[in-house]
Amino acid sequence: MADATTTIESLKNDVKKFIEDRQWQQFHSPKNLSMALASEVAELMDFFLWCESAASYEELERRRQDVEDEVADIAFALLCFCNQNKIDLSKALAHKQIEKARKYPVEKSKGRWTKYTEL
Amino acid sequence: MADATTTIESLKNDVKKFIEDRQWQQFHSPKNLSMALASEVAELMDFFLWCESAASYEELERRRQDVEDEVADIAFALLCFCNQNKIDLSKALAHKQIEKARKYPVEKSKGRWTKYTEL
Amino acid sequence: MADATTTIESLKNDVKKFIEDRQWQQFHSPKNLSMALASEVAELMDFFLWCESAASYEELERRRQDVEDEVADIAFALLCFCNQNKIDLSKALAHKQIEKARKYPVEKSKGRWTKYTEL
Amino acid sequence: MADATTTIESLKNDVKKFIEDRQWQQFHSPKNLSMALASEVAELMDFFLWCESAASYEELERRRQDVEDEVADIAFALLCFCNQNKIDLSKALAHKQIEKARKYPVEKSKGRWTKYTEL
Repeated sequence: MADATTTIESLKNDVKKFIEDRQWQQFHSPKNLSMALASEVAELMDFFLWCESAASYEELERRRQDVEDEVADIAFALLCFCNQNKIDLSKALAHKQIEKARKYPVEKSKGRWTKYTEL
Repeated sequence: MADATTTIESLKNDVKKFIEDRQWQQFHSPKNLSMALASEVAELMDFFLWCESAASYEELERRRQDVEDEVADIAFALLCFCNQNKIDLSKALAHKQIEKARKYPVEKSKGRWTKYTEL
Repeated sequence: MADATTTIESLKNDVKKFIEDRQWQQFHSPKNLSMALASEVAELMDFFLWCESAASYEELERRRQDVEDEVADIAFALLCFCNQNKIDLSKALAHKQIEKARKYPVEKSKGRWTKYTEL
Repeated sequence: MADATTTIESLKNDVKKFIEDRQWQQFHSPKNLSMALASEVAELMDFFLWCESAASYEELERRRQDVEDEVADIAFALLCFCNQNKIDLSKALAHKQIEKARKYPVEKSKGRWTKYTEL
């Protein structure tokens, strides 16, 4: 199993089975899962609260397995959300990417973190 | 493009190209991206702040496209995080799933949202 | 010490002393403290992730001391933010309240959680 | 109205009146308010997502009024939480401060952001 050969569908199915085995779908309303996602993301942030941005790379390496576990928890919750609400993630990403490309045109966004409209 | 046939790698590459075209990798430290993730997840939560858990399904349908766009933003930020820090998401999920299965054994977790250790 | 007689200033001073004793001001940039706030709020949310909205009152009573500790952590981080950036919280609240009253006029907002502009 | 003379109780009463005038207590379960808090904090974070920690001081000055408004929103939600659940914030802070002082003794915590137990 690796990103090069694993489809989104296949990850979604793994997650689905885990949840169905435990009959947890009943707790997985959009409201609850959005909170769970926020909770998992906060655990990822916790690694990097007090260090400088540049130093957060070292902090990540120092605790790589823990960080990867949190990333997995976030992905897990996100895939639960997609499963429960029949969201095709690839399509959603492709759809949003078009809007993002319009909002951040290459020539005006290069090397800038502000929206070009805020320049 | 659909979840059934799209690999994680392929999504990661789309995201990577978008970021590299804009030379945004310089802003994508673990610290910054973890904050960006939290910000995107908060936007997803915003749809469901005041409604009941059960009603959040209707709220989602009422604003499905907006919700899917937020889900895409979260996935985008998560894939940026994986790209920037060379995390294989499928492997991270598989690794974490083993721990989760140990923490929440089927027979003790069925239909319960508390950890069985808290029963 | 109780809310009826304690001024904001007095709480701010307690917090300030705690931080200065440990020379922690150097970590308290707006960026870092906003992350710390998000982290503390997530811990508060964690108590209520999977229960229904109505049941969260019981959940709170069941773990009242833990909940109050998290509320204190959030207040602590918020007061650090005000101290570090010379924000008068009472004035900030009074200023924002005027805007809120305009955005949510009583007659149009009574018993509704949506903005009246979204009706 | 200023922090030097305003009691917590007085702020709580202002917030309480605002909420009762609009009959919003019905939406203010612990679960919902914890989400609302997370949402407000995310808006504060948004100002500082991509800048360096040191630069976030300038970013704050550049947008001071907006930042103060967000701080006010967070305080508002926190005071709603205290009102709704009869939490005396001063007492909660005083209680937690004792624990924090034990967890971070001055001599071992001075100038360090890691817990001394992690040294």
